[in-house]
Amino acid sequence: MSHAANLKEEPFVLVDRDARGVVRLELNRPQAFNALSSDMLNALQHELDLLVADESLRVLVISATGKAFCAGHDLREMRRNPSMDFYQTLFAQCSRMMMSLRNLPVPVIAAVDGVATAAGCQLVAMCDLAVASVNAKFAVSGVNLGLFCATPSVALSRNVSQKAAFEMLVTGDFISAELALEKGLINAVTPEDGLTAQVNFWIDRITAKPRLGIAMGKDLFYKQLEMPLAAAYQTAEHTMACNMMDDTALEGVQAFIDKRKPNW
Amino acid sequence: MSHAANLKEEPFVLVDRDARGVVRLELNRPQAFNALSSDMLNALQHELDLLVADESLRVLVISATGKAFCAGHDLREMRRNPSMDFYQTLFAQCSRMMMSLRNLPVPVIAAVDGVATAAGCQLVAMCDLAVASVNAKFAVSGVNLGLFCATPSVALSRNVSQKAAFEMLVTGDFISAELALEKGLINAVTPEDGLTAQVNFWIDRITAKPRLGIAMGKDLFYKQLEMPLAAAYQTAEHTMACNMMDDTALEGVQAFIDKRKPNW
Amino acid sequence: MSHAANLKEEPFVLVDRDARGVVRLELNRPQAFNALSSDMLNALQHELDLLVADESLRVLVISATGKAFCAGHDLREMRRNPSMDFYQTLFAQCSRMMMSLRNLPVPVIAAVDGVATAAGCQLVAMCDLAVASVNAKFAVSGVNLGLFCATPSVALSRNVSQKAAFEMLVTGDFISAELALEKGLINAVTPEDGLTAQVNFWIDRITAKPRLGIAMGKDLFYKQLEMPLAAAYQTAEHTMACNMMDDTALEGVQAFIDKRKPNW
Repeated sequence: MSHAANLKEEPFVLVDRDARGVVRLELNRPQAFNALSSDMLNALQHELDLLVADESLRVLVISATGKAFCAGHDLREMRRNPSMDFYQTLFAQCSRMMMSLRNLPVPVIAAVDGVATAAGCQLVAMCDLAVASVNAKFAVSGVNLGLFCATPSVALSRNVSQKAAFEMLVTGDFISAELALEKGLINAVTPEDGLTAQVNFWIDRITAKPRLGIAMGKDLFYKQLEMPLAAAYQTAEHTMACNMMDDTALEGVQAFIDKRKPNW
Repeated sequence: MSHAANLKEEPFVLVDRDARGVVRLELNRPQAFNALSSDMLNALQHELDLLVADESLRVLVISATGKAFCAGHDLREMRRNPSMDFYQTLFAQCSRMMMSLRNLPVPVIAAVDGVATAAGCQLVAMCDLAVASVNAKFAVSGVNLGLFCATPSVALSRNVSQKAAFEMLVTGDFISAELALEKGLINAVTPEDGLTAQVNFWIDRITAKPRLGIAMGKDLFYKQLEMPLAAAYQTAEHTMACNMMDDTALEGVQAFIDKRKPNW
Repeated sequence: MSHAANLKEEPFVLVDRDARGVVRLELNRPQAFNALSSDMLNALQHELDLLVADESLRVLVISATGKAFCAGHDLREMRRNPSMDFYQTLFAQCSRMMMSLRNLPVPVIAAVDGVATAAGCQLVAMCDLAVASVNAKFAVSGVNLGLFCATPSVALSRNVSQKAAFEMLVTGDFISAELALEKGLINAVTPEDGLTAQVNFWIDRITAKPRLGIAMGKDLFYKQLEMPLAAAYQTAEHTMACNMMDDTALEGVQAFIDKRKPNW
């Protein structure tokens, strides 16, 4: 099943869903390099708000139509509205969408084939997993226009080392997919025609496991990252005990002991 | 001197100590892949509680007998006791043991030859230094049974980048020793017969220096990691001034000025 | 224009400034391997206090005369003054100088050609960008004298992974420029005669962009690193909205839309 997201005139986001609960959101404003205009952010937010409550969702994949993955904010829209209010509202709307990816109880995969710049690079950084083809390039290039990529730096600096992040932010220069892999921004690089295979590999791995353990785990993973070590352990102990008390884990562990496949 | 740890029926942990204050704890339940059962955790905790107060201790090395390094929690024991209380107590006991490694005033070295999974991978991550032979493999594989490796994720995510940690946690897949080195989980990879040489190299380096500076340094290192930069500096200034006031540092610095060996 | 810094008898720091606002501070106590004595720290602090208020400053480059980049604290001076008060004051003075680099509203580049040890390695770690020639080597070697590099560990552990930092701190061993690059301590390695070219490349990139965006960005970058994700985003949204309201960004974005060079 495939449909266009909730804006009649223009399908900003193409939505596809398969029988396994794999949803694919495809940014669909190729003529604007899939820029994150207010309308695009609204369309994405609309889908994410539906998905967060959808218990059959197992994986979310984010990709894009056309030659670019995402060029960040819509500069024409921004320039037309030179007010502090407009900018604060826009950037808060963008952060909210990014946090919604983090708050989804399933893994979010970015599949990048083309350039990902500024908030587009941030989008990759905020996904849980990311794969890029050799065609992909990454930059936080706002500084070239006099606009430092402040919100993208939040996500970037939690993926790559301090000096590497600072260099990208202050030069505005592109890095290749290979370098993005080395630096920790993405998990894998594929040939031009290999993106789908890598995404499907992860989907197969993820959907083969119970949803609950992954949901509890993703939530815990990002929470504990922001805690001191001792508090992180306490929180993790509780999560793991709750997870273990669930039927899926009890059955998974029993099946392992019995040397059989779990009956999920 | 070598003796078996404090459980009569089964030496869960083999303990060896040399004249230099190097203690080696060897996990010794090879038939159970050295799983961290309650008894194994108790045996380790018992040794660590003795060692923390032992002022002649200089280095602790953790290794294992048999083909596996450590397979994490004892799944049979866990499955036999399906209660929230049991799990919380068990995971807290495990975290306490892991924190005891961190709280020892000497460097702790993991020497890994075989698989280290789940809490076994966490054990490697919690050591101060780690070397693995090319035979070693690492995974946080609980997710394969429906049980997300929550407590292991705490240690793992403080060693490797966010996306790399998340990928291991959600796929449950093994990574090689080489990849573990690249990602920051371990410090070195050796040929199959090179583990001892690398461990001895570190032991020689560490025991050649005064104990006090390393003890103050290790404590400071992990404390300051959890502080904002300015507070971290303040704490470190105080540690370094105290360290410099000690006779070992005063003599070490004087010997350097005199171009002679320190008289420690 | 080139002048020696404010101490008549000995030019501890050579200062050079070009028409573009690029200032170069050159540590100039080669016979003492450019050790950070109280006088050297005072000379550096004096320059940094002038520069922080200098609105024509665009980039600061830190390099050194002689064969060493910087050997850390002045051990003779330290040994002559064995008091807790002296050490606390000295280390606080050093941290203050290091924090002044961080607080400058322009990028600070370390250009390293020779050894950088202890607080000298910390100096590299505290710069925003760092390039080293193949001749450079890095160590936090205080532990060899019984004095753990506590304050250097603060900076080092915010650049490289936990286990790599701990290994350097506890062994005191040198790592090569290549390894420093791999581990994240520096941004680039050049041939012996390539340092200037890399520094100039960064200078050209930075001075081609408006000062304000970079100043706001640098301040935000380090602030948000110490915040939880949600608070980091809120702070970054505000920074970016303020940046966008500035004439330089409005013009930069307009020029991009018009496909012309910005009129800055």
